[in-house]
Amino acid sequence: MSPQIGFVGLGAMGFGMATNLVKQGYRVKGFDVFPASVQRFQEAGGIAASSLVDSAADSSFYIVMVASADQVQEALFGENGAVKALPHGATLLLCSTVPSSYAESVAKELRNDIFFVDCPVSGGTQRAANGTLTIMAGAEPEALEKAKWLLQEMSDPKSLYVPGGIGAGSNMKMVHQVLAAIQILLSSEAMGFAARLGLDARKTYEAVNKSDTWCWMFENRVPRLIEEDFVPGASAITIILKDAGIITSMARLTDFPTPLSAAAESMYLVALGQGMGRLDDASMVRLYYPEPVKNVVVNEGDVELVFKLLRGVLICAAAEAIGFAHFLNLDLHQFHDLAVNAAGGSVQFRERGAEMISLLTGKKVAGARELPELDIDAVRKDLADAISAARKVNCPTPLASQALSLLATAKRKKDDYYGLL
Amino acid sequence: MSPQIGFVGLGAMGFGMATNLVKQGYRVKGFDVFPASVQRFQEAGGIAASSLVDSAADSSFYIVMVASADQVQEALFGENGAVKALPHGATLLLCSTVPSSYAESVAKELRNDIFFVDCPVSGGTQRAANGTLTIMAGAEPEALEKAKWLLQEMSDPKSLYVPGGIGAGSNMKMVHQVLAAIQILLSSEAMGFAARLGLDARKTYEAVNKSDTWCWMFENRVPRLIEEDFVPGASAITIILKDAGIITSMARLTDFPTPLSAAAESMYLVALGQGMGRLDDASMVRLYYPEPVKNVVVNEGDVELVFKLLRGVLICAAAEAIGFAHFLNLDLHQFHDLAVNAAGGSVQFRERGAEMISLLTGKKVAGARELPELDIDAVRKDLADAISAARKVNCPTPLASQALSLLATAKRKKDDYYGLL
Repeated sequence: MSPQIGFVGLGAMGFGMATNLVKQGYRVKGFDVFPASVQRFQEAGGIAASSLVDSAADSSFYIVMVASADQVQEALFGENGAVKALPHGATLLLCSTVPSSYAESVAKELRNDIFFVDCPVSGGTQRAANGTLTIMAGAEPEALEKAKWLLQEMSDPKSLYVPGGIGAGSNMKMVHQVLAAIQILLSSEAMGFAARLGLDARKTYEAVNKSDTWCWMFENRVPRLIEEDFVPGASAITIILKDAGIITSMARLTDFPTPLSAAAESMYLVALGQGMGRLDDASMVRLYYPEPVKNVVVNEGDVELVFKLLRGVLICAAAEAIGFAHFLNLDLHQFHDLAVNAAGGSVQFRERGAEMISLLTGKKVAGARELPELDIDAVRKDLADAISAARKVNCPTPLASQALSLLATAKRKKDDYYGLL
Repeated sequence: MSPQIGFVGLGAMGFGMATNLVKQGYRVKGFDVFPASVQRFQEAGGIAASSLVDSAADSSFYIVMVASADQVQEALFGENGAVKALPHGATLLLCSTVPSSYAESVAKELRNDIFFVDCPVSGGTQRAANGTLTIMAGAEPEALEKAKWLLQEMSDPKSLYVPGGIGAGSNMKMVHQVLAAIQILLSSEAMGFAARLGLDARKTYEAVNKSDTWCWMFENRVPRLIEEDFVPGASAITIILKDAGIITSMARLTDFPTPLSAAAESMYLVALGQGMGRLDDASMVRLYYPEPVKNVVVNEGDVELVFKLLRGVLICAAAEAIGFAHFLNLDLHQFHDLAVNAAGGSVQFRERGAEMISLLTGKKVAGARELPELDIDAVRKDLADAISAARKVNCPTPLASQALSLLATAKRKKDDYYGLL
C-alpha cells in the first residue's frame, strides 16, 4: 500500500495539487483553516482531516502549500502544529513560496528525524491540478531521494533539483518571481497604454501574443483583464505582492538593486491601499485606465508603440532576474531552462536572456539559437518613444520609466546592453 | 513716465507678480483667458486688457506667465497673439516653466526687433506677490540689460543671470524642479508612512522641521496635507506633473537617467487617473494612506524611521538634480546658491549637495561648512530599515525604493556616495 500523504493548504493551488494526487490513487489527508475547503476536498475524493495534527498523524509524507511564511510557521510549529504529530522519519515538502532565509530557519527548527525539502512550485492552478507544475527542489541528497517520487507525481516533465541545499529552491523560485512580479504589472501597463491610445483591446492582445513581445503573464492575465473577471479571479493582488516582498526584502538584505521589482511592488501596495488587494492581479489595469478597456472608443492608435514599451521592459526584466540569480550564485542555465517553460517566460527572456547568460557564464545556453546582434540603442530609443506617447495620453509608466533609466545608465557605463547586468 | 508693462496669465502666480508691479507704481495691462481673473486684477489696481493684442499694444515690456509651453505658443504666436501687436524694440520676458528646447524655438520664431529673455521663476504665490521670487534669467547680454530693472522688481535679493543664453534659464529651473517634483511627493510618502506607523501627524511635522531631514516642500506642504486643505489648495497636482514631464522629456532627449523624478511623475499620473488632478499636490498622501492623517490612532511608532526614509531620498534627490545639472553644463555653484534658497531647498542639498558639487567641480561651494564624512553605508542601511518597516505596515515607497536601488547600484560601483553621480 502506498504511504499516506498529509496536506495543509487547500487554496487555489493546494486544492489542485492535493486532488491530483488523489486522482493518481494516493491516500491524501487534507487540512485547511477554512472548513469549506476541507469539505470540498472530501467531495473530490480526499480524506478530510479535522486538524493539523490529524492531517500529520500517520502521514509519512507531508506537503505544505499555505500562503506565506507566517502561515507555514503556524502550521508547522504553532500550538497543535503538524510537526509534533508527524511519524518518525517522515518527509516534509515545503511548497509555499517563502524567503530562502525562512526555509533555512525551518530546517534548523525541525526535528532531526524529518527529511526536509524546500520545493516551491510554479505554473498556476491548472498545472497544479494536472500534476504538471514546475517544482524547484533544494535539499540534502537523502531528503531529495526520499521525496523524488512525490515531486515527480506533481510535476512534468521533471522537477528541477537545485544545487545548494535548503534555501536554493526558494531562491530559484524568487528570481523566477522577479519576472512574474514585473510581467504581471507590465500586462496592465501595456493594456492601459493601449486603451489610452484608443487601441482595440482584443486585437492588441492577439497582436502581442503573435509578436516578439509575448510573455506568459500577458497571455494568461489579459483575457481576465479585458473581461474584468476580477472577483474572485485566479490570483489576487495580495499573492504577487507577497512574492514581490520576498524579492525586495532579499534585495535589501544583500544590497542588490531591483528597481523594476520595487516599482511593481509599490504599485501593488498602492492598489492595496485603494482596497483592491483581493481582486485578481489583472485589475491593476485600473491604476492605468479608469474604465473597462473593452469599452474604449477605438481610434487609429499605433500598436507598435505597445510593442516598444513591452520589449524594453521585458529585456530589463530579464536582466534584473538574471543579474540577481547570478549574484546569488544560482545555476543560470538551470534558471533559464526553468523560466522559459514557466509563468516567467517571454520571448525576450528566452532569446536575449540566453545571450546574457552566455555572457555571464562563458557557456552557451543549450538550444539557444544564434541571434542577430541586439541594437540596444534602438531598444532604448523605442522605449523613450513609447513613454513620450504614453505621457501625451496621461498614462503612467512606472515600469517603462524605470527600465528607461536603467538603459540610460547602462549607456553611460557601456555602450551595449550588458551594461544592464 | 515709466513704460507700460503688458502681462498675460493672471493665475495664482501671475496675479501676484502683476499686482506686485502695480503696487510698485507701474502701469500694468493684464490679460487672462478667464474674464474673472482680469476683473480681479482691475479691482487690485491693474489695467484690464480686453484681448492679447490689447495687452501687448503700447507695452514696451511684456511678461508671459501662462501655465505651459502650449499656452505660451498660443498667447504669443496664435491667431491674434501678442507678438504681432508689440511695439518695435519691446522686451519680452517668458516667465513660464517650459522645456529649454521650447524657449529656443520661441527665440527663433520671434520678430528680430524684440529683446527676449528666458526667465522662469520659483518661490510660490506669496513670494510672487511680494516681489521676492527667485528668477533664473538667460538671454543675450543686450536683452538682459534691457530687462534687468524689471527682473529686479520681481525678485529679491537679486535674480540669477544664468550663463548660456536662451534656454539656460529654463534648464536651471528644470533641474531645480527635479528637487521640487521629488520632494513634493516625498512629503506625502513620509507623512503616509508616519500615519501607517501610528505617529501623530503634527508632532511628526514639527520633528522633521527641526531635523536634518527638513526640506522646504515638506514644511510648506504638510500643513495643507494635515488639514486636508486640497480644494482649491495652493498648487494643483497638474502643475507639478507638468514640470515633472519637462524633466523626464529632457531626460529622454539626452539619455540621462532620472529614476526618482520618473517615479514621482508616475505617481502623479496615477493620481490624475484617479480624478485628483485639480487637487492640491499635498493630496498625494491619499495614495499612501486612505484616511486623513490627522485621524490616525496614535501608538508608539518610531519617528526615527521617518527620518531614515527622508534622509536617504533627499540625498539621492540632490544627486539626481546635481548630476543632471552637471550633465547639462550648468553652473553648479550657481545652482546650489539658487536652490538652497528656493522651494527645492533641503538641509541635505545644502550640505551634502555642496560636497557633491565640490567633487564634480574641484571647487569648494562658497560658505559650505566642513562636514564629518558621510557614512553612505549607514544611509543605505537606514533607508533599507525604513522600507522594511513601511512594508510591514503596507505603505508604498516608490521614491524610497528607487533611492535604495540607486544606493545599492552605487555600492556595487564604488564604495562611497559619489557613485551616485
